[in-house]
Amino acid sequence: MRHFIEELNELQNKLLEMAGLVESAIHKSILALVDRDEDKAQEVLRNEARINQMEIEIDDLAVVLMARHQPMARDLRFLTAAIKINSDLERMGDLAVNIVERALSLMRQPSVKPLIDIPHMAKLVESMVRKSLDCFVKREPELAREVLLSDDAVDDLRDGIYEELTRFMEKDSSTVSRSLDLIFVARNLERIADHATNIAEDVLFLVQGVDVRHHAEAREALH
Amino acid sequence: MRHFIEELNELQNKLLEMAGLVESAIHKSILALVDRDEDKAQEVLRNEARINQMEIEIDDLAVVLMARHQPMARDLRFLTAAIKINSDLERMGDLAVNIVERALSLMRQPSVKPLIDIPHMAKLVESMVRKSLDCFVKREPELAREVLLSDDAVDDLRDGIYEELTRFMEKDSSTVSRSLDLIFVARNLERIADHATNIAEDVLFLVQGVDVRHHAEAREALH
Repeated sequence: MRHFIEELNELQNKLLEMAGLVESAIHKSILALVDRDEDKAQEVLRNEARINQMEIEIDDLAVVLMARHQPMARDLRFLTAAIKINSDLERMGDLAVNIVERALSLMRQPSVKPLIDIPHMAKLVESMVRKSLDCFVKREPELAREVLLSDDAVDDLRDGIYEELTRFMEKDSSTVSRSLDLIFVARNLERIADHATNIAEDVLFLVQGVDVRHHAEAREALH
Repeated sequence: MRHFIEELNELQNKLLEMAGLVESAIHKSILALVDRDEDKAQEVLRNEARINQMEIEIDDLAVVLMARHQPMARDLRFLTAAIKINSDLERMGDLAVNIVERALSLMRQPSVKPLIDIPHMAKLVESMVRKSLDCFVKREPELAREVLLSDDAVDDLRDGIYEELTRFMEKDSSTVSRSLDLIFVARNLERIADHATNIAEDVLFLVQGVDVRHHAEAREALH
């Protein structure tokens, strides 16, 4: 039987591999949207099965390690965090697929407006995802706090995008269906940011034993 | 130290208490929408803190039980299922709050259309939530399969609702903002159904050791 620490490293590496696949899916989904690039869209759809497969492998590995090593305290917290982060990553992958479906529908129609806000929002969300995984690997609470702070900025961007697109639909009813597609893209990006925030909260709990979920006061204190 | 089985029962009872709060939040959120009942809406908002608090208590209890009893195989699977179900329930609670926010916005404006499809969809979703918890308590795979089957019906209802509301917006631009609110209500109901489906899949894994996530073939075989 290999050493437990080696196996925990293997688990972490698998999570990082999965995170890499998910980050690339998110990035490509936005390229597919902005550049009307059907190849990119198809790449995301093809990679979904691999992400789903990895979720199962990582879950299985975490449960096997729990059963085999009966870990205490810190290692147990790490394993439960890994299970939650795994689930958050898989859902981000699903959300990238949702974005691709909207992108495919939109690339067959004339564009409603130049896309500026959505790529801007996507860039912020991608950096949140990267930081949330970085802070997991480096056990770096400062990065986790940056993720929590960015979540508010993402919500503001989403509000702006909704308002603009609502005005488009009101002014010109022929844009309704395409504007709705863009609203759902923004909504999916916002949900990806929520999952990055979940990961950052799990890392803060793992590193500091502080539970920041639902504690507005504790989150305020981080600002 | 109390007997482990007693403590596992306590954990299950806490999960059921939480499920009761969440089911009532979903039910009231739809009543608030359909009856334009602001009191019901406020009840849901007031109960959110309690649901969030219970999520933390249940997570903590599950982790303490893992650490204290070092459970093997079946009990370990139960504890990891409990952690996942807990997270799904808390998110359903958030989604009920989202519905309430749309209901509060809509009750201040004239209605777009008589609400028939959304209450119909809500009824189906509520029954999925109840069954998913029932199948967890009774370890009854048949109920879990019913939940998986209902998920497709929910998606069909959602598609119908989207199409109708898109037509409303295209025909009369003054309905755009209110129709969007209703579209988001349907979207939130669909996501509640997704969480109930997650729970049913976790229960099937717990009971049968069969992993039905992402396995289209396995799911087909259940039909």
